[in-house]
Amino acid sequence: MASVESVRLFQSKRLETFIASVLAALGLPEQDAAVCAARMTEADLRGVDTHGIFRLSQYCQRIRAGGINLRPDVRPVRENAVTALVDGDNGMGQVVMTYATRLAIRKASEAGLAWVGTFNGNHAGAAAVYSTMPIAHEMIGMYMTVANGNHMPPWGGVERILGTNPISVAIPTGNEPPIALDIASTVVAQGKVKLAAQKGESMPVGWMIDRKGQPLTDPKRAAEGFLLPIGGYKGYGLNVVIGMLAGVLNGAAFGRNVVDFNKDFVTKNNSGHMILAMRVDNFQPADTFKREMDAVIREIRESERMEGVDRIWLPGEMEYHTIRERLKSGIPLPPAVVDELKHLAGALNLSDRLD
Amino acid sequence: MASVESVRLFQSKRLETFIASVLAALGLPEQDAAVCAARMTEADLRGVDTHGIFRLSQYCQRIRAGGINLRPDVRPVRENAVTALVDGDNGMGQVVMTYATRLAIRKASEAGLAWVGTFNGNHAGAAAVYSTMPIAHEMIGMYMTVANGNHMPPWGGVERILGTNPISVAIPTGNEPPIALDIASTVVAQGKVKLAAQKGESMPVGWMIDRKGQPLTDPKRAAEGFLLPIGGYKGYGLNVVIGMLAGVLNGAAFGRNVVDFNKDFVTKNNSGHMILAMRVDNFQPADTFKREMDAVIREIRESERMEGVDRIWLPGEMEYHTIRERLKSGIPLPPAVVDELKHLAGALNLSDRLD
Repeated sequence: MASVESVRLFQSKRLETFIASVLAALGLPEQDAAVCAARMTEADLRGVDTHGIFRLSQYCQRIRAGGINLRPDVRPVRENAVTALVDGDNGMGQVVMTYATRLAIRKASEAGLAWVGTFNGNHAGAAAVYSTMPIAHEMIGMYMTVANGNHMPPWGGVERILGTNPISVAIPTGNEPPIALDIASTVVAQGKVKLAAQKGESMPVGWMIDRKGQPLTDPKRAAEGFLLPIGGYKGYGLNVVIGMLAGVLNGAAFGRNVVDFNKDFVTKNNSGHMILAMRVDNFQPADTFKREMDAVIREIRESERMEGVDRIWLPGEMEYHTIRERLKSGIPLPPAVVDELKHLAGALNLSDRLD
Repeated sequence: MASVESVRLFQSKRLETFIASVLAALGLPEQDAAVCAARMTEADLRGVDTHGIFRLSQYCQRIRAGGINLRPDVRPVRENAVTALVDGDNGMGQVVMTYATRLAIRKASEAGLAWVGTFNGNHAGAAAVYSTMPIAHEMIGMYMTVANGNHMPPWGGVERILGTNPISVAIPTGNEPPIALDIASTVVAQGKVKLAAQKGESMPVGWMIDRKGQPLTDPKRAAEGFLLPIGGYKGYGLNVVIGMLAGVLNGAAFGRNVVDFNKDFVTKNNSGHMILAMRVDNFQPADTFKREMDAVIREIRESERMEGVDRIWLPGEMEYHTIRERLKSGIPLPPAVVDELKHLAGALNLSDRLD
């Protein structure tokens, strides 16, 4: 693992420009490259380090292999005043979901509420990046997606046909940080298992089970086991429902036809996503609602804490502080990631090599 | 505990008529009494025994104490084509939520999508009873509510200011049982803890913790501890978000202003609920969608099982089988519940005393 000393800090604007340059050099239209760079940098600012610039090299590998349509015709193929089904035409996930989220916001501004689904998309990064977009318009946002790889069996099964299917919900506030829940429906992500293996640590009971349903605590044996859903059969049910709403409903992949985007760089992902946007003033004047939200948030935060607990956090509050911290001090990148990016920049003959 | 022999089976129609008679005798208009009876019997048919006729005595106690408005003016106080805020006027929860769900279905039939929130409501029974109502109209249903009592602290806290806030999602299918997820955001409900105490059994690690965050496994010490959310901080976040969408957004109770309906029979609950309904044919022809749902369901059910597991279940599938079984053989009631109902019928001089 990288020592703290060797982690380098980069201003977010610099990384955003860097990402856009790399993607443009690979043939993405400048506007689309900028959209991807913005969404990926937002993920890094939020502290979702696995869904920002960390993914750039993998995205590039996919682009080079022909697995992404660089000039997609992203458009609604079914549409009414409050819903739309958007064909992503195998474009970059960030491009498709930015289009879909803006469409949902536009429809909700007029009608009060909108649900937009997408198919033929790709991995779009951090869920909260999309669910929080409606907040600036005094709207609630809800986002679900089918994960781009299967690591979990159904409850009682041993065949990996389900992913970490996440759900994210964002709610406007007044002076308090906006609420932004962003959770996978598994207890931990695959990345935490890899990290435990690298550190030589054992995993707590509850992260994984083996083929016989017994707790698996040795991360080096992870390949023999399965991630567990949150709350057992409850999280399994939530996972399946997310897959149906974000996948099946949109004619997108779910189950065995999900492509593992970490292994296969060519096959169309047909990744499915959904975004809901709703104006809060359907229900209350926005100011009243935001005041009430602030009051409830403070009630929760200031409630009596367990011995040894410094602070009670609301969903999205840690990320809010991380954004402010990273906007000021920069985004930390470990040496392995910096090396990979330098290599990428060199191969593309970019002027910025992150030196 | 009741022995199996002493459990009596009642035809669902008989129990439904009985419930309606009791509520009408207490002054509920016949139509409203019939609505409550239908929703409560549906809960019993689904196997959600804690949310059906089991609650009748408690509802009656509340009505007698003046805690329910028997002639509520249930109506939208804010409304547009796709959303409505419904004032339940402190009517029976089943009456308010049946009104709200029908309104959502009507709006969604016309516009494709609708979200209806309610305030000034009461305990409405089983969540899936409402989320599944849109299914007959080839719509997806989503329901959330703020639980009528607080048994859980925020993550890291020790003050019980959160409930078991459930979420339910229902999705139409073709020949397969409809999908109907219905989960609390806590690992177990309070009822399971009581059951373990009655049986003298210890609870598994993961159900409850004590004030120091240590596992609490003796159900007799339950009063010193707290229910745990599913997936730790994830379920806590989901719980809070459900409370905000079903409670705060509607100007309904959430947090410290939630009334414990098991202890206080007089104070207005101001219970909040939300229901979303959406036509599946916004996205695909309904028949195509239902065929795809069937295929995905079979893929999951027929995937390889863990040794010793007889069957993989989909969300709502067990309840579907329970409904069929109970429609045929009747709804089982333990002697304690039958005795309570007999007593209730006697006090009201009803002709049917469940003899």
